[in-house]
Amino acid sequence: MPEYRQDPLSRRWVIIGSDRAGRPNEFVEATTRHTAQPCPFCAGHETETPPAIATYDAGLGGPWSVRVVPNKFPAVLAEEVPPFPGAALESQSEGHPLPGFGKHEVIIETPRHVASFSELTPAEATLVLRAYRDRLRILKADGRFRYVQIFKNVGAAAGASLEHVHSQLIALPGVPEVIRQELQSSLDFFQTRQKSLLESMIDSELDADLRVVAATSRYVAWCPAASRFPYETWLAPRFAQANFENGEDGELGELAGIARDVIDRIERATGVSTYNYYLHTAPFDRSAPEHYHWHFEIAPRLTKVAGFEWGTGCYINPCPPETAAAHLRGAANR
Amino acid sequence: MPEYRQDPLSRRWVIIGSDRAGRPNEFVEATTRHTAQPCPFCAGHETETPPAIATYDAGLGGPWSVRVVPNKFPAVLAEEVPPFPGAALESQSEGHPLPGFGKHEVIIETPRHVASFSELTPAEATLVLRAYRDRLRILKADGRFRYVQIFKNVGAAAGASLEHVHSQLIALPGVPEVIRQELQSSLDFFQTRQKSLLESMIDSELDADLRVVAATSRYVAWCPAASRFPYETWLAPRFAQANFENGEDGELGELAGIARDVIDRIERATGVSTYNYYLHTAPFDRSAPEHYHWHFEIAPRLTKVAGFEWGTGCYINPCPPETAAAHLRGAANR
Repeated sequence: MPEYRQDPLSRRWVIIGSDRAGRPNEFVEATTRHTAQPCPFCAGHETETPPAIATYDAGLGGPWSVRVVPNKFPAVLAEEVPPFPGAALESQSEGHPLPGFGKHEVIIETPRHVASFSELTPAEATLVLRAYRDRLRILKADGRFRYVQIFKNVGAAAGASLEHVHSQLIALPGVPEVIRQELQSSLDFFQTRQKSLLESMIDSELDADLRVVAATSRYVAWCPAASRFPYETWLAPRFAQANFENGEDGELGELAGIARDVIDRIERATGVSTYNYYLHTAPFDRSAPEHYHWHFEIAPRLTKVAGFEWGTGCYINPCPPETAAAHLRGAANR
Repeated sequence: MPEYRQDPLSRRWVIIGSDRAGRPNEFVEATTRHTAQPCPFCAGHETETPPAIATYDAGLGGPWSVRVVPNKFPAVLAEEVPPFPGAALESQSEGHPLPGFGKHEVIIETPRHVASFSELTPAEATLVLRAYRDRLRILKADGRFRYVQIFKNVGAAAGASLEHVHSQLIALPGVPEVIRQELQSSLDFFQTRQKSLLESMIDSELDADLRVVAATSRYVAWCPAASRFPYETWLAPRFAQANFENGEDGELGELAGIARDVIDRIERATGVSTYNYYLHTAPFDRSAPEHYHWHFEIAPRLTKVAGFEWGTGCYINPCPPETAAAHLRGAANR
């Protein structure tokens, strides 16, 4: 029997299906990769990207292990635009467009041509998270941005245009809608319960142990009850931390380990490697709000979004998260 | 220079790009169709679907022209579930799931094996719209539903699993989030201006004539200023009408004509035929609210949604709607 479920954090409703697996599908889709052109993200091709903003070295003998560069085809541009009040992006603008102020950067995660975060070495994966943290700290100190969206696209179905594993960030002058909703839900909950909403959700997941995928001393990964997508998995610290950039160096290795493990499990359980992940963290202009709780959302791209979802905002997920979590727990580690 | 723009109706922000067309793309995607199995929607295969709920005949000599059947693999189910208060789906439910009560139907738009609305005869296209209207009227009279989402998926990229042109509807016990936001924006606007927000938007589009694609005496199609997707096109009556099902028979032929024309233009201008459309209309429990204005949103699937959009709710659209509208206006009619 299908169910309607609501995610308490985003307040989104989903329909969790149970019996749509037998549906016919007349279409066969195939993705191939051009190999005629060399990859601009591989070692030795550094001149094909803009000059690096930062590089990180894992001491493995190469010129770099992680490399941060400006996006050559930015969606937003900081150049020649004066800063404007961040609040503008968060209210009704009466239809007046605003200049596309911002920054768009690429984090190249290894000099080797591999496609997924799960293929990074532990040292590389840890440096990627350090690069996220450092860019957040530096863009916060810049003073002109209110939010930085860090995200990753792996595979054509996830919107990637290049195969070589990389993340992106877009620094914005305002706080996006999804984050504002999460802040509001978290604040509402905190005001009545004196606790982080996400921490409360994690406690329930650990108690029920129906949807937990992996856990370490500091971090938990689980398939949320109101998953929008099959095998969607969230990863968060057990105890509320509002700002990702406030984390300490010593924690990043543990986080990198569980992130690699979870993505590896998703790839083994589903047989495909195409996913998005995105970091949700507190905006810059709040001093670590005690009600917010940063987390990564990992969304495999196994199904297509269709007209019902675009029309309503309500997602039909044919794979119950309890089923997905059981498969992910059973997927053997590399 | 990119721009941030906000849609007044959905209140969604988008980033309209201008210079991302040169981006490299390493991936080549190809979709093919299995032809081993016969199509269950073609004439002569009626026993492969559940029995028809309704059929329409254009007097062309066939057994039927449009055929409405229950979805064989429904996302929601009406069976054996008592009705529950519709308001439940519209509030915080404290994490309690609700049974997946509802109806899921398929509208088969022609007995011929064609793939797009633009390939229907004028008589068939008109009957499809009449089927929409009739199903809305009947499901409203049922009394257990508050909203019916009518939508279409064409092509694998739009989430279609069968090629034969069809629409779907899902009847819901509550009003979806996207519609509630549109109702709120429309009400806010109406209370200060005594006018429909969408009608005001249409008036501005007709005045500026930058983004209008087509117009008839009763209907207008335009690329909205804050389009989320390249070549996104909205189609609405010039003057506010809240409920699609209150329309008269005599209007449906004109609406079918402009809908076929617009979809044909999109297919010619972009060279591909893969799109979703969805009808936004007033919920059943309001007596034709004077502030709401039904419309179709047509969204071609030319680009992938990626991590930034999933993480923020803000869409990057690399094709300005002014450019899209110019191409659509120039696309010759069949």
